[in-house]
Amino acid sequence: MSDYITVAIDGMGGDNGALEMVKGAVNAVNEHDNVKVIICGDEETINTELAKYEYADYKIEVVPTTEEVEVDASPVMEIRQKKDSSMVVAMKLVKEGRASGFVSAGSSGAILVGGQLLVGRMKGVQRAPLAPLVPNTEGISLLIDAGANMDAKPEHLVQYAQMGSIYMEKIVGIKNPRVGIVNVGVEEHKGNKLVKETFPLLKELDDINFIGSVEPRDVPHGACDVIVCDAFVGNALLKVQEGLASALVHMIKDSIMKSTRTKIGGALVKPAIKDVMKLFDTSEYGGAPLLGLDGLVVKIHGNATHKEMKNAILQCVDFTEKKVNDQIRESIQKTVNKDK
Amino acid sequence: MSDYITVAIDGMGGDNGALEMVKGAVNAVNEHDNVKVIICGDEETINTELAKYEYADYKIEVVPTTEEVEVDASPVMEIRQKKDSSMVVAMKLVKEGRASGFVSAGSSGAILVGGQLLVGRMKGVQRAPLAPLVPNTEGISLLIDAGANMDAKPEHLVQYAQMGSIYMEKIVGIKNPRVGIVNVGVEEHKGNKLVKETFPLLKELDDINFIGSVEPRDVPHGACDVIVCDAFVGNALLKVQEGLASALVHMIKDSIMKSTRTKIGGALVKPAIKDVMKLFDTSEYGGAPLLGLDGLVVKIHGNATHKEMKNAILQCVDFTEKKVNDQIRESIQKTVNKDK
Repeated sequence: MSDYITVAIDGMGGDNGALEMVKGAVNAVNEHDNVKVIICGDEETINTELAKYEYADYKIEVVPTTEEVEVDASPVMEIRQKKDSSMVVAMKLVKEGRASGFVSAGSSGAILVGGQLLVGRMKGVQRAPLAPLVPNTEGISLLIDAGANMDAKPEHLVQYAQMGSIYMEKIVGIKNPRVGIVNVGVEEHKGNKLVKETFPLLKELDDINFIGSVEPRDVPHGACDVIVCDAFVGNALLKVQEGLASALVHMIKDSIMKSTRTKIGGALVKPAIKDVMKLFDTSEYGGAPLLGLDGLVVKIHGNATHKEMKNAILQCVDFTEKKVNDQIRESIQKTVNKDK
Repeated sequence: MSDYITVAIDGMGGDNGALEMVKGAVNAVNEHDNVKVIICGDEETINTELAKYEYADYKIEVVPTTEEVEVDASPVMEIRQKKDSSMVVAMKLVKEGRASGFVSAGSSGAILVGGQLLVGRMKGVQRAPLAPLVPNTEGISLLIDAGANMDAKPEHLVQYAQMGSIYMEKIVGIKNPRVGIVNVGVEEHKGNKLVKETFPLLKELDDINFIGSVEPRDVPHGACDVIVCDAFVGNALLKVQEGLASALVHMIKDSIMKSTRTKIGGALVKPAIKDVMKLFDTSEYGGAPLLGLDGLVVKIHGNATHKEMKNAILQCVDFTEKKVNDQIRESIQKTVNKDK
């Protein structure tokens, strides 16, 4: 057993529920030798899905649960009250050390709350940020925090920079990743109170490659590898880009359909536009990790398919194999000790 | 003279300087009967440009200045020290009542500082927000504040909602404009401290059409007419959209150039894509007003051409003719009195 890395998943979460979640789990264990998946969810539903596939029995375990966390309800109440939900039970497996990671396509709010309340923060970590990989013209960057902790303080952003750097280096393979703080301009006198107070702290930090302020305009052009900001700004950056990309594609399609000439052209360029849009398909990159916890919690999209679930499970395996949390612990402790 | 509305402009501002600024002024006075423009700037440079055009002499006046505000320097120092700069002199004309509006393509920071220090805020207005019109799939919305006042308080955002509603109704002609506050979700428990505190105040306000929270994802789809947020978030929303649009166009072009088939298609769809991008060409909508001042200050893009300058001048005329400031004053006073 000790050779296996175990990942617990919420088998019922997301728009597609067990249908896609179970298929993702099966594909993950079939693709990777050392992974075992514990699927939490309604026993009958999960087993019906599992029956469709071939896989090594010992690599998948079903832990039956009777409840489900609702997307529209209060995350805190759901996590506190639904003790036998697929999400709560799976997160507790991580807390107890029976699984090293957890993946869910369920309620984002509940995943964030559960991560902090059930899995718990690493010693010294003040807030656990949500850190999705976001595509840009040059590759991908890590956006940290994309929506976990509202009203962050400067010392939180400093820890985001440390954790994000380690993640990008170890998991994404970018050496000495460039860390930038989102700001309204690159000049040092610019920014709100939070940015002005955080800037000198980041400058002081000797274990990250801080390149200063990055303007939101340059983020889609790959201005830095680790994009540090508070959760409200990060969420706005992430979501408005999703909205604009879909708006533009919609408008270009409408505009192309207006004449025969452009219709013909549209048919010819379709693959090229699709290629670009595929670069912006975040399901390729696994899910968004909630960093700084005693274990790894990964949030995948509500409409995630088996592909995204599989990638997120393998992401947990990679995270565990590379001992990313040990390095985060070391980096955080160094700063905590320095402050004493 | 009293039949004319006078607009003072910074004849030296922007990447294109007098060349485009003067042409915009000439086109404005030639297009509109009741406008007079005072151009502040280097006398020789301005007169050389003016000599190229035909216009009624009495409609353009040159006020010679000897200095220029630098884009890269500290805005506060520039405004305080360069008393004979084209920007400072033109703004003072507004303060003295000799002009009702001011337009500049110069340093954004200096325009914002000068607006507050030289032109001055209307009685009762606590902060003057920058409010550009931003395109969406359904038309245009007003983004308020897009970058003027960092670290806003709830009462500031309430005034933005009031001023923005009046501007959209009177200048853009949208009846009973829908006001939304930018938030990470539409549920009432979501948001940072600022949004949570502002939300109930907006709900109480009976002279605006408050529709609640709008998610950044829905902003490009025209979720509301007046998009209320603090300056940091507004700047991030505005700038990341500009960056993403240019990144996508760049990537689609590259992708189209990869094969003969898509190259031919690209030539055919080019006009359709151009049409869409034109919708996102903000120079069509004049400039971004700084609202809540005793007069109107309009910031146009650094790379503005004569077209944008002309539109911004006519925007000042429209603003003055429709007595928008009287209505803002009335709306703000009503709330101020209510609070007593």
